[in-house]
Amino acid sequence: MNVAVYLPDIDKTRWWCETLSGLLPGWTVRPLQEIEDRDAVRYAVVWRPRTGDLAQFPNLKAVVSIGAGIDHVLADAELPRNLPIIRTVGADLTQRMREYVALHVLRHHRDMPRQLQAQRETDWHAIVVPVAPNRKVGVMGLGNLGAEAARTLAGLGFATRGWARTPRIMDGIETFAGEEGLAGFLDGLEILVNLLPLTRETTGILDRRLFARLAPGACLINCARGAHLVDEDLLAALDEGSLKQATLDVFHQEPLPSDHPFWNHPAITVTPHIASQIDAATGGRLIAANLRLFEAGDPVPDLAEAARGY
Amino acid sequence: MNVAVYLPDIDKTRWWCETLSGLLPGWTVRPLQEIEDRDAVRYAVVWRPRTGDLAQFPNLKAVVSIGAGIDHVLADAELPRNLPIIRTVGADLTQRMREYVALHVLRHHRDMPRQLQAQRETDWHAIVVPVAPNRKVGVMGLGNLGAEAARTLAGLGFATRGWARTPRIMDGIETFAGEEGLAGFLDGLEILVNLLPLTRETTGILDRRLFARLAPGACLINCARGAHLVDEDLLAALDEGSLKQATLDVFHQEPLPSDHPFWNHPAITVTPHIASQIDAATGGRLIAANLRLFEAGDPVPDLAEAARGY
Repeated sequence: MNVAVYLPDIDKTRWWCETLSGLLPGWTVRPLQEIEDRDAVRYAVVWRPRTGDLAQFPNLKAVVSIGAGIDHVLADAELPRNLPIIRTVGADLTQRMREYVALHVLRHHRDMPRQLQAQRETDWHAIVVPVAPNRKVGVMGLGNLGAEAARTLAGLGFATRGWARTPRIMDGIETFAGEEGLAGFLDGLEILVNLLPLTRETTGILDRRLFARLAPGACLINCARGAHLVDEDLLAALDEGSLKQATLDVFHQEPLPSDHPFWNHPAITVTPHIASQIDAATGGRLIAANLRLFEAGDPVPDLAEAARGY
Repeated sequence: MNVAVYLPDIDKTRWWCETLSGLLPGWTVRPLQEIEDRDAVRYAVVWRPRTGDLAQFPNLKAVVSIGAGIDHVLADAELPRNLPIIRTVGADLTQRMREYVALHVLRHHRDMPRQLQAQRETDWHAIVVPVAPNRKVGVMGLGNLGAEAARTLAGLGFATRGWARTPRIMDGIETFAGEEGLAGFLDGLEILVNLLPLTRETTGILDRRLFARLAPGACLINCARGAHLVDEDLLAALDEGSLKQATLDVFHQEPLPSDHPFWNHPAITVTPHIASQIDAATGGRLIAANLRLFEAGDPVPDLAEAARGY
């Protein structure tokens, strides 16, 4: 079985090829750019493929996204229609996202940026904040990652809300659904975490109108996709004070260009798309297992719904 | 019933007097310094009383510590012997401590200090860390606060250990006890949280010898008492690199003197004794309830064992 691998970084691509070759004895795993016999390729394992990368393999049976999102695959305008796309999720990814969300919600909750500022000023200044059960936090997107993040926040004691496209029932979490549930979800919310999939409907959802519905001085954490956020609206909301702080892990362009105003903004924490990284060791095992399932014709639980966008 | 209140800050003292007066109708609650009829005082509610403050009331039946620790009361060399001491603990205090411990363990786990440094340098540099189940964290002291902190860390997915004077069994936490269990508890530990009571045995326990038993490059979080830590040993361990970072909420002298080397140390986060604050509203209710129980002769679960020191 022949597998083509593509990531923007060729060194990482080789690393993934080696790892997957070791995990799939008998399969041929090669960097996409170096493949000569295109007809023989049955699977592609990719992160941010370029336009036309996948269309060149006429016998492709499925594409594997090296990550939970498939937006970076669907972004290819020449992507063959109806090609099955397999996501890569797993305990490690979910665990890392839980950690990131817990850390940054707690940072904003306890106002660590201001507390660290007090230390820089040698100022013994106690910042008094409400206790977590009196703090309204909410997670947009209740897929694998979002649901676990919401449960983690509820476990830490926060008054936790969740919002998704379709109704959910979750223990200890106040859930809201769809466009008609959005206003109730946002009303009075003090810390908002975005973990939505990126679709046509959710692109630019984090905008001026949405920020205006949050509690005054709310904080935003975006660990989904850069395109969910309208950058200028965030800057305006921070400057006006309607938002207090933001932590951003994802950006319209990554790496974030060095002249982007987010880098030096005093109210913005920038992290380099690290909320939930897949390492080739853990990710390789998940991908190899999914490829074997698919090849054997068995159900693959991580199969995405391309029409839905996630 | 007459109650004397003392805190180092007279404004806070008046605030507590007002709150407690409101919660204890019929009782007389006054600042300790302003009391004329000393014989009439039956209870004292104090934070860091001065030497001799309590000995001047011959008919004192009990002392209430405005906090979970009683070390600041026992520090009074003239404290009448065998005087019952009531601690102030409660859901809010425990909740706030859980938040603080979770926040700072996650900060060290995900190396936020280095990640924030990368942002200051406009450096898109991903710091790769193990996933929490592969991170060994431990809590020293498994009283109300320590046990809840350990449970919270285990709930976040960390490989969690606990150490106490006497053996405990805790679900999902590897426990160690006494002097003979200390080496096993510390061995390979990457993030250490101190929540011990301050007693003769635990004073200075966070010293050079203890740090040497941790994993190389371990992090320390002290949210118990400043006197647990040997300041010079911490500075030496950070300079040698045997410890990587420390977060300190408590200090030998508070407020931390402005010329203390902790303030500007690049590897030390200083917070101004905020891990778990008692506010007069919540704390007042707890204290009033405990005073009523004691006065009625009912069992007071928050009664400390002065001989033990906590």
